[in-house]
Formats: sequence, structure tokens, C-alpha cells
Amino acid sequence: MHRVSRVTSAPEEDRLNTQIAFALEIDKLKRVIRRNSLMDGSRRENDAEHSWYVGMLAMILGEHAPPGTDVQRVVAMLLVHDLVEIDAGDTFIYDAAAVAAQLEAERAAADRIFALLPPDQATLFRELWEEFEARETVEARFAKALDRFAPILANHHTEGGTWPLFKVRADQVREKVKIIEEGSASLGAYAYELVDLSVRRGHLSE
Amino acid sequence: MHRVSRVTSAPEEDRLNTQIAFALEIDKLKRVIRRNSLMDGSRRENDAEHSWYVGMLAMILGEHAPPGTDVQRVVAMLLVHDLVEIDAGDTFIYDAAAVAAQLEAERAAADRIFALLPPDQATLFRELWEEFEARETVEARFAKALDRFAPILANHHTEGGTWPLFKVRADQVREKVKIIEEGSASLGAYAYELVDLSVRRGHLSE
Ligand SMILES: [Ca+2]
Repeated sequence: MHRVSRVTSAPEEDRLNTQIAFALEIDKLKRVIRRNSLMDGSRRENDAEHSWYVGMLAMILGEHAPPGTDVQRVVAMLLVHDLVEIDAGDTFIYDAAAVAAQLEAERAAADRIFALLPPDQATLFRELWEEFEARETVEARFAKALDRFAPILANHHTEGGTWPLFKVRADQVREKVKIIEEGSASLGAYAYELVDLSVRRGHLSE
Repeated sequence: MHRVSRVTSAPEEDRLNTQIAFALEIDKLKRVIRRNSLMDGSRRENDAEHSWYVGMLAMILGEHAPPGTDVQRVVAMLLVHDLVEIDAGDTFIYDAAAVAAQLEAERAAADRIFALLPPDQATLFRELWEEFEARETVEARFAKALDRFAPILANHHTEGGTWPLFKVRADQVREKVKIIEEGSASLGAYAYELVDLSVRRGHLSE
């Protein structure tokens, strides 16, 4: 990556250069490929477009979060939630061993990637990511619910998508729906119905 | 697209079904391909990942907007700003005839796409898009600045990218930088420097 050299180098210009270096780095999220495909099944999804999509879901479905949820914070959280996968890669949520190993890799990734920002912003961005992962606030629980909801919607609309491909069974999916339910009762109920419907259509095995 | 059939169909369930139908429709933004490529030049960018990227730029660079700018509104505006391209497609901003023809197509697209939402949300989303296009608020001017800034950054980092490919000259790029400058003085100054640097490197012709 090239830096723009300047005649003068005031502190505010250094700050902008640092922010731009971070912006160039996170472009790599567009090359992290996920398991699930687009809603039309035409190709697998990447993390950047997934992050846009779940941010949009927050804007569209925000009223299904508990009253008082700060939906704009949910959007911000979802835009940054996968940045650690630039280093750590995507993990298939039905692979329990991989999920455990992933935790350390994601923490190391957070240490490196957020530190590219000016220190005050590094703290704010890292806090968004930590909050998302901890799932202790209504915002984080709703954000995580949407992150789980999107691939279920995609699998449902692509004849089961990754489910038959990776031999995932209905009860394993219902385990993930619990996380949706904890973020939003109505989206949880909707997701359980999608699972049942996928089973009835023969796209998901009991 | 399948609808989930339910035993009962309370109004709030119809509302959720309507929101989900909109969510399924906007997945198509992932298949709208833009002129510019990723920062590493590996492939062309799609509108969904571009929308994520400019939303992130707003979060990273928000302090370069005029004081009092509502950065969260800028993020929301940028997430929805290209939805009309699902129908209207991407337009190359250096093709003046295409840009003029595009206006009508985008308005027709907005009429169709936002109307898929429940009416109250259709109004809110359309207002975000109209505000972005009108560029009359500080939020819209900053959002538009970031939308112009991203491809200049990408071209600068890919040896000129679309500039030599489509025979774009430095003064045409500087015309676009004016729009960046109107949204943010410091990002405008930075972009003018990128243009000069690209010229000196032989990646952009005067
Ligand atoms: Ca556009």
C-alpha cells in the first residue's frame, strides 16, 4: 500500500493517513468467503456483502428487537462484527471443534486489525466487536440474532443450501434458532417455522 | 420466493412477511457489478460490498464531516443509497449521457423497490435515498463525498484502475473531487493529492 507523501505532516494529516491505512486493510473482507450462498444460490457469499446485508436487516427488522434497543448501534456492530475474519477466516458454526479454536484466532486478529486505527478509534471499534461477541446487551443479542437469521433465510430459499451439503440436521439448526429467539421473540418464532417448513419440503433432515 | 404459510395470520405477522419479502429482494444488490475493482485489483466490486465499505468509511472518517453531522444517519443513507441499482444498474459516472438517462430509471426503481416495505418504512427508506441524491444536508453531502472517495482510492491503489481503461483524464477526476470537497474539506484535499500522485506515477493522464 502506498502512503501519500505530503510537504507538511501535521498531526491531523498523520491521523487521516492512519485512518486510510485501516480503510485499505479492511477491503480484504470482500475476499473472505462464507459457507452459505446468495438467496438465489448463484454463488457463495463474502463477508463484506454479508455485513451489509445484516446491517440492512437491522434497519428493516429493528422493531422486532426489545423496546429501547439502540438500532443504530446494532447497525454499527454488524458492520464491524466480521472484521476479525480478515485474519481468522470464516468458521462453519456447526463445526464445534473449529468454533472453539476460532476464539483465539479472532482475538489475535482483533489485536492486530483494530490497532491499525488511531488509539481512540481502536478502542471504540474493539468495544463494538467485544460487545457483539459477549451478547450481554439487547443490542448485541439482536445483532447476533440477525447474524444467525440471514444464513437460515438463505438456506431455506436455496432448497436447504449448506444443510444437506454438510449433513446438518434440523435439531442442530433449532439450537442456532435459540440464539435468534434470545435476540428477538418474533424472529425466533419465524425462524422455527422456516426450519419446520424446510423439513416438510425435504430440504432438511430430522 | 416462497412465503411462510401460517395457521393464523395476525396483522403483525403480515408485517413481518412483508419485511422479509423486501429483505429477500434486496439480496439482488450483491449481483450488481460496478466498474471499479477491489483495492487489490483481483476482481470488480459489487454494489452490496461497496455499500458496506462506504458505511465503514463513514464510521472511520466521520470526524472529517462538518461539526454536528449525524454520522449514524450518514451510515444508514449509504447502506440504502444503491438499492435502486437493483433495477437501474450501475452507471459509469464519467459517461454524462448515461448519467442523465439513469435519473429516470432510478426514480422508477425507487417507486417499485421501496414500495415492497410496509408503507411507514417505505417512506423512511425513500426519504434516505432522496436526501442522499439531493445533497442538500451535511449528512447527504458527506455521504456522497464518501461514495466518490472510495473508487478514487481504489483506482489510485490499482495503478489507475478504471481511469486508463476508460480513458478518463485528470481534470475529469478533479471535477468529481469537487463533490468530495463539498462534503469534507480534508477528504477533498486528500483526494486532490491522490489525483496528483496518480498523474506523477503515470496512472492518470492530464
Ligand atoms: Ca452508485
